[in-house]
Amino acid sequence: MTSLPKFVEFHEEGPREGFQFERGRFPLEQRAALVDALALAGLPQIQVASFVHPGKVPQMADAEALFASLTPRPGVKYTGLWLNARGFERAREAAHITLTGSLNFYTSDAFSRMNNNCSAAEMREAQRDWIPRYEEAGVPLDAAYIMTAFGCNFEGEIPVAKVTELARWIAALNTEPGVAIPKLYLCDTVGWANPDSVRRRVDAVKSVLPDVRVGLHLHDTRGLGAANFHAALQMGIDLFDSSVAGLGGCPFCGHSTQAAGNICTEDMVFLCHELGIETGIDLEALIEAAQLAERIIGRPLGGRVMHAGSLQGFRRGRPGA
Amino acid sequence: MTSLPKFVEFHEEGPREGFQFERGRFPLEQRAALVDALALAGLPQIQVASFVHPGKVPQMADAEALFASLTPRPGVKYTGLWLNARGFERAREAAHITLTGSLNFYTSDAFSRMNNNCSAAEMREAQRDWIPRYEEAGVPLDAAYIMTAFGCNFEGEIPVAKVTELARWIAALNTEPGVAIPKLYLCDTVGWANPDSVRRRVDAVKSVLPDVRVGLHLHDTRGLGAANFHAALQMGIDLFDSSVAGLGGCPFCGHSTQAAGNICTEDMVFLCHELGIETGIDLEALIEAAQLAERIIGRPLGGRVMHAGSLQGFRRGRPGA
Repeated sequence: MTSLPKFVEFHEEGPREGFQFERGRFPLEQRAALVDALALAGLPQIQVASFVHPGKVPQMADAEALFASLTPRPGVKYTGLWLNARGFERAREAAHITLTGSLNFYTSDAFSRMNNNCSAAEMREAQRDWIPRYEEAGVPLDAAYIMTAFGCNFEGEIPVAKVTELARWIAALNTEPGVAIPKLYLCDTVGWANPDSVRRRVDAVKSVLPDVRVGLHLHDTRGLGAANFHAALQMGIDLFDSSVAGLGGCPFCGHSTQAAGNICTEDMVFLCHELGIETGIDLEALIEAAQLAERIIGRPLGGRVMHAGSLQGFRRGRPGA
Repeated sequence: MTSLPKFVEFHEEGPREGFQFERGRFPLEQRAALVDALALAGLPQIQVASFVHPGKVPQMADAEALFASLTPRPGVKYTGLWLNARGFERAREAAHITLTGSLNFYTSDAFSRMNNNCSAAEMREAQRDWIPRYEEAGVPLDAAYIMTAFGCNFEGEIPVAKVTELARWIAALNTEPGVAIPKLYLCDTVGWANPDSVRRRVDAVKSVLPDVRVGLHLHDTRGLGAANFHAALQMGIDLFDSSVAGLGGCPFCGHSTQAAGNICTEDMVFLCHELGIETGIDLEALIEAAQLAERIIGRPLGGRVMHAGSLQGFRRGRPGA
C-alpha cells in the first residue's frame, strides 16, 4: 500500500455517459446548464458529448450545438469522444472544445468485435493510425484506455496477464520516436472489479509503466464502486473518471448487459474530502449540479450524498440541513 | 492492517429496519415470506421485528403475529428488538424467537435525550439494570452497541476518545462478577463514517477490549458503505449488520435527518465472495429475496447486485443472465 494521494483529479463523464444511456431526449439548454453547473463546481475536465453517428446514438446528434451553447469557464477542459476519423473531424470544429487524443485497447476479442467489428489484436494495431493523425492535427496524445480490464460479460474473467501484456505493448509504443502517452486508464467497463483485482492490476501496470500516470474508470454496477475507488486511493491513484449523480447507467434496469453507472462524482469527492484529500471541487455546488441532473432526467438517481446532504451543515451544529 | 477474515457473519436487519422505516403498511404474509426467503438464503441471524409501543411505531404492532407466521429454519436465529422491560416481556412470549441480550450506549447526549429522555451518562448507568434482568430470564448477554460512534447529526463529529471512554467503561463492566459481554458493535447510526474513521475506532476499541469480538453496524447514507465495509474487513472485522436490498432508509427522501439505509446485504456478500471470503450465504437465493423485498415495497430499492445480477452466469460463459 502506498500512501493516499494529496490531490485527486476527477474527469466528469456524466453529460456524455448519462444522456447517451438514457432513452429519452432532453432539451439542449438543460444539458448545457448541467455542464455549466459542473464547471462552476470546479470540475477540471468535463466530457460534454460524443461525436458518433446520429443514426446510432440520436441523443448525441446535436453535439456541436451543445458545445456552442456552453458558457465556457476559463481553465476547464470541455472534451468530446469520437470513435473514428469522421467523428474526430466533427470534434475539431466544435466550439470551446479541448481535444485530447486517446488510444483504446481491448482485452476481450468478443467485446472488441461487438464495438469495432475487429479482434482485440486488430484494434490494437489500428490504434497506430491515430498517432500521425493526432500529430498532424496538433492534438496531444493524452491517454491510453484499457477496456474491460477486469472482466467482460462475453469472455468472463480477464486475467491480469492480459492487462500486463497490453501495458507492455504500450510501453514498447512509448519508446517509438515522437510517442509519449502520459496516462493509462484501467476501465471496469461492465462492473467486474473488486478491491483486490484493482490492486493487482494497478500493481501490474505500474511495474511495466512506472512513469505513466494510472487512472481508473470505475462503475458501480454491483455496489463495489466506493470500495474499489478507495482501494485505488490506497495505491496512490489520483485520477478518476466519474459521473455526477451516478449518471450513466440505470441501477434499476434489471438488464445486466446494459452499460452501468459510473462511480458517483459527488460521493467520491465527499470521500476524498473526508479523508483530507483535496479535489479543487466545491462539494455543495456539485451537489446542486447533481440535483439539477436529477430534475432533468426526471427520476431518482443513484447518488447518495445528493439525497442525504454533506456533513457541512451538521458540523456547523446546524441539524437538519 | 490485519489480514482479511476467512468467514464473515451477516446479521440481517432488513425486515425490522426496512418496514419500520417505510410509511406504508405491508401485509403480514409478505413480510413473513421475506423473512423465510432470507433464512433459506442462509442468513444465520435475522432481526424480524421490534417490540415497541404500537402507538409510536404502528408498522410493528403485529410483531407477535409476524413471529408466529414464520416457517422457522433450524439453526437460524430469529431476533427481535426492545427498548424497555415491557418490550422485553412481549419478546419473551414470541414464537420462534432467539432472545439475545444487548446493552446500548450513546456517545451523544443530544441523541440519547431524543431517544431515551436522559443523558448519555444516565443511559449508560441504566444499562446495568438489564444485567440482572437478562440473568433472571436466562437470556445471554450477547453484545454492547455504541450508537453514533462516528458522528451525530445533533452534536457533530464524535471524537475517538468518546468511543474509547465507553469501551473502557464496558471493559470495567466485564470484570464484574458474572458479566461477560462477548461482542461490541460500533454503529454508524446516521452515516458519518469513512474508511479512516472506521480504522481508528476499530483500533481504539480493540486495544481496550482485545478479547471482545468487534462488529460494525454501517449505513450507506453518503455512498461510503462499501468502502467502510472493506476498510473493516482489512482490519479483520468479521461481523456486520446489514439489510437486504439496502432496506432501512430511503436514498431519495431528500431529508437528511431521516434514518438512512443500512449497507446492502447482497452487495456486501458479493464483495466477500469476490474476495474469497465465505459467508455461508447462497448469493443467488439472497438476490431473489432482495427482489421479493422490492416487489413488496413497490419502488426501486438501492441495492445494486439485485439489479445487475451477480457474475455467476457470466463466468459460466452465459452472457446476459
